[in-house]
Amino acid sequence: MNVNDSVTKTKFDNLYMCRESIIDSLKRSTDVMFGGKQVVLCGYGEVGKGCCQSLKGLGCVIYITEIDPICALQACMDGFSVVKLNEVIRTVDIVVTATGNKNVVTREHMDKMKNGCVVCNMGHSNTEIDVNSLRTPDLTWEKVRSQVDHVIWPDGKRIVLLAEGRLVNLSCSSLPSFVVSITACTQALALIELFNAPSGRYKSDVYLLPKKMDEYVASLHLPTFDAHLTELSDEQAKYMGLNKAGPFKPSYYR
Amino acid sequence: MNVNDSVTKTKFDNLYMCRESIIDSLKRSTDVMFGGKQVVLCGYGEVGKGCCQSLKGLGCVIYITEIDPICALQACMDGFSVVKLNEVIRTVDIVVTATGNKNVVTREHMDKMKNGCVVCNMGHSNTEIDVNSLRTPDLTWEKVRSQVDHVIWPDGKRIVLLAEGRLVNLSCSSLPSFVVSITACTQALALIELFNAPSGRYKSDVYLLPKKMDEYVASLHLPTFDAHLTELSDEQAKYMGLNKAGPFKPSYYR
Amino acid sequence: MNVNDSVTKTKFDNLYMCRESIIDSLKRSTDVMFGGKQVVLCGYGEVGKGCCQSLKGLGCVIYITEIDPICALQACMDGFSVVKLNEVIRTVDIVVTATGNKNVVTREHMDKMKNGCVVCNMGHSNTEIDVNSLRTPDLTWEKVRSQVDHVIWPDGKRIVLLAEGRLVNLSCSSLPSFVVSITACTQALALIELFNAPSGRYKSDVYLLPKKMDEYVASLHLPTFDAHLTELSDEQAKYMGLNKAGPFKPSYYR
Amino acid sequence: MNVNDSVTKTKFDNLYMCRESIIDSLKRSTDVMFGGKQVVLCGYGEVGKGCCQSLKGLGCVIYITEIDPICALQACMDGFSVVKLNEVIRTVDIVVTATGNKNVVTREHMDKMKNGCVVCNMGHSNTEIDVNSLRTPDLTWEKVRSQVDHVIWPDGKRIVLLAEGRLVNLSCSSLPSFVVSITACTQALALIELFNAPSGRYKSDVYLLPKKMDEYVASLHLPTFDAHLTELSDEQAKYMGLNKAGPFKPSYYR
Repeated sequence: MNVNDSVTKTKFDNLYMCRESIIDSLKRSTDVMFGGKQVVLCGYGEVGKGCCQSLKGLGCVIYITEIDPICALQACMDGFSVVKLNEVIRTVDIVVTATGNKNVVTREHMDKMKNGCVVCNMGHSNTEIDVNSLRTPDLTWEKVRSQVDHVIWPDGKRIVLLAEGRLVNLSCSSLPSFVVSITACTQALALIELFNAPSGRYKSDVYLLPKKMDEYVASLHLPTFDAHLTELSDEQAKYMGLNKAGPFKPSYYR
Repeated sequence: MNVNDSVTKTKFDNLYMCRESIIDSLKRSTDVMFGGKQVVLCGYGEVGKGCCQSLKGLGCVIYITEIDPICALQACMDGFSVVKLNEVIRTVDIVVTATGNKNVVTREHMDKMKNGCVVCNMGHSNTEIDVNSLRTPDLTWEKVRSQVDHVIWPDGKRIVLLAEGRLVNLSCSSLPSFVVSITACTQALALIELFNAPSGRYKSDVYLLPKKMDEYVASLHLPTFDAHLTELSDEQAKYMGLNKAGPFKPSYYR
Repeated sequence: MNVNDSVTKTKFDNLYMCRESIIDSLKRSTDVMFGGKQVVLCGYGEVGKGCCQSLKGLGCVIYITEIDPICALQACMDGFSVVKLNEVIRTVDIVVTATGNKNVVTREHMDKMKNGCVVCNMGHSNTEIDVNSLRTPDLTWEKVRSQVDHVIWPDGKRIVLLAEGRLVNLSCSSLPSFVVSITACTQALALIELFNAPSGRYKSDVYLLPKKMDEYVASLHLPTFDAHLTELSDEQAKYMGLNKAGPFKPSYYR
Repeated sequence: MNVNDSVTKTKFDNLYMCRESIIDSLKRSTDVMFGGKQVVLCGYGEVGKGCCQSLKGLGCVIYITEIDPICALQACMDGFSVVKLNEVIRTVDIVVTATGNKNVVTREHMDKMKNGCVVCNMGHSNTEIDVNSLRTPDLTWEKVRSQVDHVIWPDGKRIVLLAEGRLVNLSCSSLPSFVVSITACTQALALIELFNAPSGRYKSDVYLLPKKMDEYVASLHLPTFDAHLTELSDEQAKYMGLNKAGPFKPSYYR
């Protein structure tokens, strides 16, 4: 059961949690001020979108790199400049990766960064920043705080590397229990569904969580916000061709 | 070919166009000031999300009604109060429907609205506001401008009904040619695909546009913003299991 | 009595009205889409701040020009790039002036603009854009709509000039009656004060409106938003050294 | 020399620093998630405005209390509901004081708060929250972390009190060195001015920093953002009646 791509995971955990944890991670580890800072976000998927929302709200100037033209066009419409990393690497103050890919930030990029540039990874695993390329004799590493290394170039330039390129929000911030609850709830329901399903419903394959369960997870979390759902009338349900208890959207909707 | 649910339609036309046209429609038809106004948005799908983004940016206090717990939870996380229409109907200044449903705003609701309340539909067709219920002998209609009717209650109360409940952005604003171009381009490519497809690829069914075409539509519109796409290296494409020319995301991604 | 610099004028009329009227003026005159557009705002005073707020909310990429380092630093902290006009003039889609100065946009600038660039004035009078410099034999003027001229270069390039450089919000949009009410109320109270003042209170000089009247103007407009003011307790008023009826701030506060 | 009310203090330190430190303080001390949380801000001066900007950007639903009708009207126009504290005290998740006054949050208020409500002070001194009223035999204090106390009611209800009511941003977060630099620079220049001033320029009174010095402080901080100031031409300076080196605004401008 591919819980990772369920709506309540991708559109909540990835977006809303990262919106808060990018700020929190950078503050706790570097005490950086965000107002007026130039930030490049590599990747404008859910994680990138979440990060940009809060960074924009705090007065950062934001650049995006993307390989996918759809996400790139979204970045444009959201008011961000879409660039290649090399176009801005000499001037930005903060570099954040959120692509799911490898070697997005290379030694060549880091050679060009300005003194004091902060580099961190919000994406996956520890592959996005080529940290190994920094373990060469010409560079000096100085641990200034837990999870914070200064990498020092021969000319004295320092870049600030967080969590040695591992996920910075897992390493340097706490995670809101609410969003974790949404994700954990999704996982638990997936297991229950697999356990209870009549034999034959699921073959040896990867499935997305049924829409109705996604909706159930969401409904369990609404009372926290004292949110009041509207119910369909019989007439409305019939007009829409919906069951009054959901699911309310086609499975591909997100 | 179900173009209406392709990514470049739902995530661009619905979201970004409505973000601008809700403002434009209301300004051109009523000259209303947005700062400090209380607005209730019925429906927090793509259209509702787009409307809320711009209305929030202009200083409105926003309430949401929703039937779908996932969209309701998104509204909460985005900072909006999720309520039943009856909880706020006596105090709001503007009511906007964007549900795709029928009779979302009923005569009973309109009886409770305060004097001067503006009512309009951004959803679909002309079913969302029960306009027929206003054509009764006790109410007087006064056309104050093209597409703008005052409906007057016996006690003198007026509500401002736009476009007689039809789509207000088609009736009262212009549409940005850019977003129309995205949608039209999607439709044209769908027709070309159907024409060129080898017999047997499509049966008598409804299909979503292949991801790769969606991406192609987006890429055709990037030069407008002078956006520079990043290309995958061979090593990165292999790591991700992607073709360097796309598609870059699974078909269910949006 | 210098009403123009009273708080309820500068911080309301200039900021909140312009926040809405820049959008409205551009939409009604050009039907432009804002998402992804590059805009340069000349001047980051109250008017510029108001314009930027709404343009940012609609997804524009914004550049600022400023002569005053304090306003420039505010622009930085608010997330905008502060540049000289020449640095961005070849790439921007929209140019807005809000400086109160003259010849801020010159013929030389307009020679460099790209095809389709929109130019308008939100500042004062009609001096900010050097429109006279465009009335030369090599350029052709084409009125495409009321208040909208295309000025055509010999190579076919067109710039879109609004209201011939006069105030675009007075020429191309309506003004929210609410903000006009605040300003008119301020003016009326100033006249009443001058009429009622005992001889000797005002000499032949220019005065700012007394703080208390500014506060009175604001309090008259609060019921529109159903806003509930908190009252000082006797103990709190004493602690702050304030009269419970105001004024609540020193005269220089704004 | 009243440095506290100079523009570079009130409009930078108070606004931009608090915009970041309210978030940082709450995260570090409580790990709270902001999305969807209901927050009441007592006071909408510079500090309150700064706090609201970032909290709004992170998806909070915000209420304001104010005694000053001008600030209250600004809150309305910025999209916040202006209420008396008692109207929302039973439902909010976070209470922040920023009034400069005393006993803004009383024992009576705290008796009504819901379980888990977070209470903190961003204003001045330690007077805004009546902490002494919580030191009664019926309530139990439990220190759960440095600067974080749970105050426990007989029925088990807990409120989360930060820094025992002292300034939470000084107690629970770091301060961006950049904004501190602006403030410190203002103070240093004030001292230099007092030292250098010819005898007689300043009498035994409190003075605001001359505008020109405020502008000088700002100009010293622009290179951090690579901001490029525009210079007045001779013709423009003459038109505006300004010296090309400033000051660029009247002393009362802010």
